[in-house]
Amino acid sequence: MKLYEKLADEMTEAVRRGVFAAGERIPSVRQASQQHGVSIKTVLHAYALLESRGIVETRPQSGYFVRDAVATAAALDEPRLSRKPVAQTQPVAAAVDVSRLVLSTLRSIRAHDAVPFGSPYPDPSLFPWRRINQYANAIARRQASWNLMDDLPPGNPELIRQIARRYAENGVPVDPDEIIITLGATEAINLSLQAVAKPGDTVAVESPTYYAMLHAIERLGMRAIEVATHPVHGIDIEALAQVIARQKIAACMVMPNFQNPLGFQMPDERKQQLVDLLAAHEIPAIENDVYQELYFGEARPSTLKNFDTKGLVLHCASFSKSLTASYRIGWAMPGRYRAQVEKLKFLNTLTTPSVPQVAVADYLRQDGYDRHLRHVRKVYRQQASIMMAMVQRFFPTGTRMSTPQGGYVLWVELPERVDSMRLYQAALSRSITIGPGMMFSMRNDFRHFIRLNYSYPWTAQTEAALKTLGELVAQMAR
Amino acid sequence: MKLYEKLADEMTEAVRRGVFAAGERIPSVRQASQQHGVSIKTVLHAYALLESRGIVETRPQSGYFVRDAVATAAALDEPRLSRKPVAQTQPVAAAVDVSRLVLSTLRSIRAHDAVPFGSPYPDPSLFPWRRINQYANAIARRQASWNLMDDLPPGNPELIRQIARRYAENGVPVDPDEIIITLGATEAINLSLQAVAKPGDTVAVESPTYYAMLHAIERLGMRAIEVATHPVHGIDIEALAQVIARQKIAACMVMPNFQNPLGFQMPDERKQQLVDLLAAHEIPAIENDVYQELYFGEARPSTLKNFDTKGLVLHCASFSKSLTASYRIGWAMPGRYRAQVEKLKFLNTLTTPSVPQVAVADYLRQDGYDRHLRHVRKVYRQQASIMMAMVQRFFPTGTRMSTPQGGYVLWVELPERVDSMRLYQAALSRSITIGPGMMFSMRNDFRHFIRLNYSYPWTAQTEAALKTLGELVAQMAR
Repeated sequence: MKLYEKLADEMTEAVRRGVFAAGERIPSVRQASQQHGVSIKTVLHAYALLESRGIVETRPQSGYFVRDAVATAAALDEPRLSRKPVAQTQPVAAAVDVSRLVLSTLRSIRAHDAVPFGSPYPDPSLFPWRRINQYANAIARRQASWNLMDDLPPGNPELIRQIARRYAENGVPVDPDEIIITLGATEAINLSLQAVAKPGDTVAVESPTYYAMLHAIERLGMRAIEVATHPVHGIDIEALAQVIARQKIAACMVMPNFQNPLGFQMPDERKQQLVDLLAAHEIPAIENDVYQELYFGEARPSTLKNFDTKGLVLHCASFSKSLTASYRIGWAMPGRYRAQVEKLKFLNTLTTPSVPQVAVADYLRQDGYDRHLRHVRKVYRQQASIMMAMVQRFFPTGTRMSTPQGGYVLWVELPERVDSMRLYQAALSRSITIGPGMMFSMRNDFRHFIRLNYSYPWTAQTEAALKTLGELVAQMAR
Repeated sequence: MKLYEKLADEMTEAVRRGVFAAGERIPSVRQASQQHGVSIKTVLHAYALLESRGIVETRPQSGYFVRDAVATAAALDEPRLSRKPVAQTQPVAAAVDVSRLVLSTLRSIRAHDAVPFGSPYPDPSLFPWRRINQYANAIARRQASWNLMDDLPPGNPELIRQIARRYAENGVPVDPDEIIITLGATEAINLSLQAVAKPGDTVAVESPTYYAMLHAIERLGMRAIEVATHPVHGIDIEALAQVIARQKIAACMVMPNFQNPLGFQMPDERKQQLVDLLAAHEIPAIENDVYQELYFGEARPSTLKNFDTKGLVLHCASFSKSLTASYRIGWAMPGRYRAQVEKLKFLNTLTTPSVPQVAVADYLRQDGYDRHLRHVRKVYRQQASIMMAMVQRFFPTGTRMSTPQGGYVLWVELPERVDSMRLYQAALSRSITIGPGMMFSMRNDFRHFIRLNYSYPWTAQTEAALKTLGELVAQMAR
């Protein structure tokens, strides 16, 4: 290995480890020359290599900066609109059956000790697992026993208070009495949908949509209608209006912040338009806001609740993406449907386990949740930037990708000839997993799309895996 | 207080505390006279009082024994058959809506720091709470983090293995691959019912039935038909056959062991007949067996699974009554419906929290679960006996009651003029709770029935509360 290559690898590693964060200046050529005891020429050569890798970028009269792909215009085009606007395609509500594919995919991901680009879950090593478990242990020590009766729906009062406090601090209008603790957002979404619609009803969803939305519809024997969704602006409100004009819609399920898989943050004025449109037709909106704390911008984004005057928004969220996945603590704020959701919670699983509720409440009250979140947001933003640079570097021409505004997944459109299910199989045999596009729709529109998880630390092994993936894509694109 | 009354109270307290267990001989008159330094006459007087209280009984040539109401013929008549056999009453399937009553009842019980005769849950102080929490804590210490992916349905493999082992040791045919971990038996029952029936279908249940059965039916928008159920033999199989002959039944939900609220253990030959009848019509049986470990007899009773040759039995159980309620660990063994139930678990709540699963598995593998169970069974049997004696002592003529064969609830039929909802309110204002009979049926048949929980330690306060309750009943019976 040449000296400049060695230096470039060292610098890449430093960026990977967050020594230099996205957007930060790296040492000047002169500084680096002194620090590493190499010639100016070697540093220049190394920095040129870093630039070609997409790790750094030069700014005139300023020097070299770690590239921040999230903040700058995406290097690649954004993915194309999932499908033509609805008016031209006559969308048809369809019964849903995607859970088999999703479950078998997750199973394969688990079975293989593989590079987890396909995982829907965040890297658990980022969670303050030991801290939260210490709270759980303290509860177990100070209480001689636990009476299940104390945590009947709506849930532990102190946890509810802490959740309400966080919303209030972020400008989201909230009444603590509205909050119902659930088993993760999954249950919150299920109960919300059951509260507002019945079997056979038609529900509007984004396209692509997070598959848990489709699962909720499938579980209740409802029908889904997919509405074109823009990778930057979110659900196509005009298309939705046309759907509503044409047929009875029992509910609309959306993820306005850092949508999985697209990663957009719906602008405030569009959130307002969406709430207004639905309110005009008295259609309940089920808002999945599980990534609310994982924003890359300056402040926590607004929610549909901020624009809801009629109590039609059923807001669902959880701590599973930001604090602890294995505790399975979620909640619903179901607006005017509160009583129904609470009753359904009671019928569905009786209560959410007690100690996890109290442990999270104690952590929120006493510990550094905001400090933890600041760290996680910085890490994710850094890793989003690296993943984007690497896709640009390793994937063939014709590849497009999203620019996530939060969360930890990247949505990649491959050249049209690539079948992501075949890619999934080929990658799996090389111990690499991906999220095939078919999981996010009932239609065939996303056959050549994949979702990549960037929450895990970027290592040499990760980089080699993404390179391999790019080669597979290139082969299949021919 | 007279000397003999003081001695009688001391002896009553000793029985309460389990110094003398049900069926055991208490000190002879001579021994007691010496031990307490009182005259033979005083002891005889005290023992006569104990006998009149129903605490002890004399056996010719043997002396005085702690009365074992569970083993001997019940002092009071058994409750009457819930209703006339079905052939005479033309039962009608009805949509179900009992959850509101149940939830509001549980709420009141919680809100009042009351004597918990009305609680559906066992006394949590009997659970080995600290031991299990120690296992949970050990897991948290030895693992740096937890990957949710590792516990996708069907659930933690070691927990599944431990559950399978216990069934195998008790002669229940079991394939570990059949077991699916759920959030308590509540979720197991819900998923099982959804796997075999659809909205609008009719489901046969016992009458009275455990209200969670009715909740599952209500949640899924199905209809229930109640079948007369004998307080000793269980569901009336002939009546069920007539229902089946008359209309399409999608499933039958039963609780063959220590049914809540009746407490019976269905004899083996009747379990066999029930399974055969349902198998002949290809009707799935959902068996709720949450009290399986809380038997008063010599050995764990059989389950419907023991007689199932066609995979039509969906067996549901949990650790919530016998080991830990707040961990919410249940499971389903759904026979031929395994794939459907597993998929529904995935859709309903994704996974059951991980640490509780592993902590229970570790406890089962390493700790004294069987020793714990032997203790709990002894305590419950003792307390059943005392509760029965006290109902006989304090309640007016015309009262009837069940003879529980396991579990921790007593079913009491009051004189017909007593409205148990009025009694419930009157008792609540005196800080006493009861389970009104209306919770266990969609019909009006159990208006004058109540369920009493005897899992809590029998104290002077408990006794005073039951005496007050008996007085209220007597007033209302007039």
